[in-house]
Amino acid sequence: MIFNVTILGSSSATPGWGRGLPAQVVNFNEQLYLIDCGEGTQMQIQKFGVKASRIRHILISHLHGDHYLGLVGLLSSMSLQGRTQPIDLYAPRELAEILTVQFRCMAIVLHFPLNFHPLDMQAPAVIIDNETITVSTLPLVHRLPVVGFLFREKAKPRNLIKEKLPADLPFEHLQALKRGEDVVWQQKTLAADDYTQSPKLPRSYAYCSDTLYHEPVIEWAKGVNLLYHEATFADDMAARAQETHHSTARQAATIAQKAAVGQLLLGHFSVRYREIDVLLKEAREIFPHTLAAVDGAVFQIG
Amino acid sequence: MIFNVTILGSSSATPGWGRGLPAQVVNFNEQLYLIDCGEGTQMQIQKFGVKASRIRHILISHLHGDHYLGLVGLLSSMSLQGRTQPIDLYAPRELAEILTVQFRCMAIVLHFPLNFHPLDMQAPAVIIDNETITVSTLPLVHRLPVVGFLFREKAKPRNLIKEKLPADLPFEHLQALKRGEDVVWQQKTLAADDYTQSPKLPRSYAYCSDTLYHEPVIEWAKGVNLLYHEATFADDMAARAQETHHSTARQAATIAQKAAVGQLLLGHFSVRYREIDVLLKEAREIFPHTLAAVDGAVFQIG
Repeated sequence: MIFNVTILGSSSATPGWGRGLPAQVVNFNEQLYLIDCGEGTQMQIQKFGVKASRIRHILISHLHGDHYLGLVGLLSSMSLQGRTQPIDLYAPRELAEILTVQFRCMAIVLHFPLNFHPLDMQAPAVIIDNETITVSTLPLVHRLPVVGFLFREKAKPRNLIKEKLPADLPFEHLQALKRGEDVVWQQKTLAADDYTQSPKLPRSYAYCSDTLYHEPVIEWAKGVNLLYHEATFADDMAARAQETHHSTARQAATIAQKAAVGQLLLGHFSVRYREIDVLLKEAREIFPHTLAAVDGAVFQIG
Repeated sequence: MIFNVTILGSSSATPGWGRGLPAQVVNFNEQLYLIDCGEGTQMQIQKFGVKASRIRHILISHLHGDHYLGLVGLLSSMSLQGRTQPIDLYAPRELAEILTVQFRCMAIVLHFPLNFHPLDMQAPAVIIDNETITVSTLPLVHRLPVVGFLFREKAKPRNLIKEKLPADLPFEHLQALKRGEDVVWQQKTLAADDYTQSPKLPRSYAYCSDTLYHEPVIEWAKGVNLLYHEATFADDMAARAQETHHSTARQAATIAQKAAVGQLLLGHFSVRYREIDVLLKEAREIFPHTLAAVDGAVFQIG
């Protein structure tokens, strides 16, 4: 089952060096979740061949312009292109006003339902919980309220070892075994451990942008397969990072190392860095399994 | 003295085929006037090497998203990049609310003065009038209130024919001759026509987007050197043009021909046209001096 993330923009506040503004698409089993939507996201979606019609959820981490200014254009274009399927939009409450004012001034009525879900920016919450995945939030620390997003695949049922099973075992007993429960059949106890195998471990992806170094992320993102963490600055700009409430690459790597994640993906690079080798180098000194976001690149999760 | 226009986006409602959303920069004597500001304008400005610091005036024709959604991002980036020089913004009144709501939600204070000039969307008006140029508006006909913009160079003084002039003619007499007035000097009348030559004719540029075919444009744009006119559709889509309050290439050319302009520049192409040869061909059947807008291209005025 597909689980990956496509980077649409790896820059921070202003675009530059071929890097677009923050946006990325998580593909989980061909369901697309758009995270953040900086100006130009609809162009990046076109450029990288992302199927906009498959985007069903949009998640906005906070209301700095580089993270949401592409939203009105994207929604307008979806409507012009004939979309009728709903969008569930998770965002800070104030975004509703921003959208309302603009759609009124533009005299636009979207041709699809836009379901607005205001985020609790102060406390962790589960915002999406369906049969296969949960998405939960964690408040981060920035100049504006901001949350991170954690995608966690639901645990799969255990796999039956078919050659061991009695041929006529009833369906409900099979289901119980898959849930890991022992069953009694014809006066015999069948132990789940004997008749099933562990499924693949559920996979997980955490997104943290924008934020100061924030230790609660460690517990929240513990052991995720892939952690995207902003790394706006290199270490020599640590004071500037502190001042602007951003992280250095080294801080991102420290979070990744303490959370024992599988891989770290750096992004949200300041336009002052034409090449981001220095950021990657500094992070890898702390956490070797570090990658750098590149516009258009797809990163596997798990 | 430079007078030209750089196309930043030649598409209409949605971007495509490498064409950005509506925006263009008029350069008059190294003073830059940005007309419309679709999503992605700040990226196009970077891409085509336009000096954003030289933009002093921004004119927004109407409040469809493809004509203004890049504005908040552009202004934010200008501020981040350290701009202190003011911007004069001419736009429909409602844009002030759109900007206010967003800058409040983003908790952003621009580091330069933004002088907002609400446009009269119902009647022609002169909106800029300085020593060298005037900019005036004309209401057009679209689904929302929209105005066109007419840039008209001020008439220059007549050129003195120095070799004919008495050596000791006082300064104020020279000034009078340059204004075309005869003067009396040492009991002799010096006729302006004898001692001066006509200056170059003042140059002019008219911008019309978005609009139905609208005959008042003919008188307003009479004889301009360059008329930019939207041409969203080809002739076989005339019904669709009418329905959406846009023009066909043929209609744009008819306006150009009746207004006896120097050149016609087509733009605002529907994304349905990968190549716009058909639009150019249809327009040239009516008005041969027709060009097509191309992102990044610079068109001389006069």
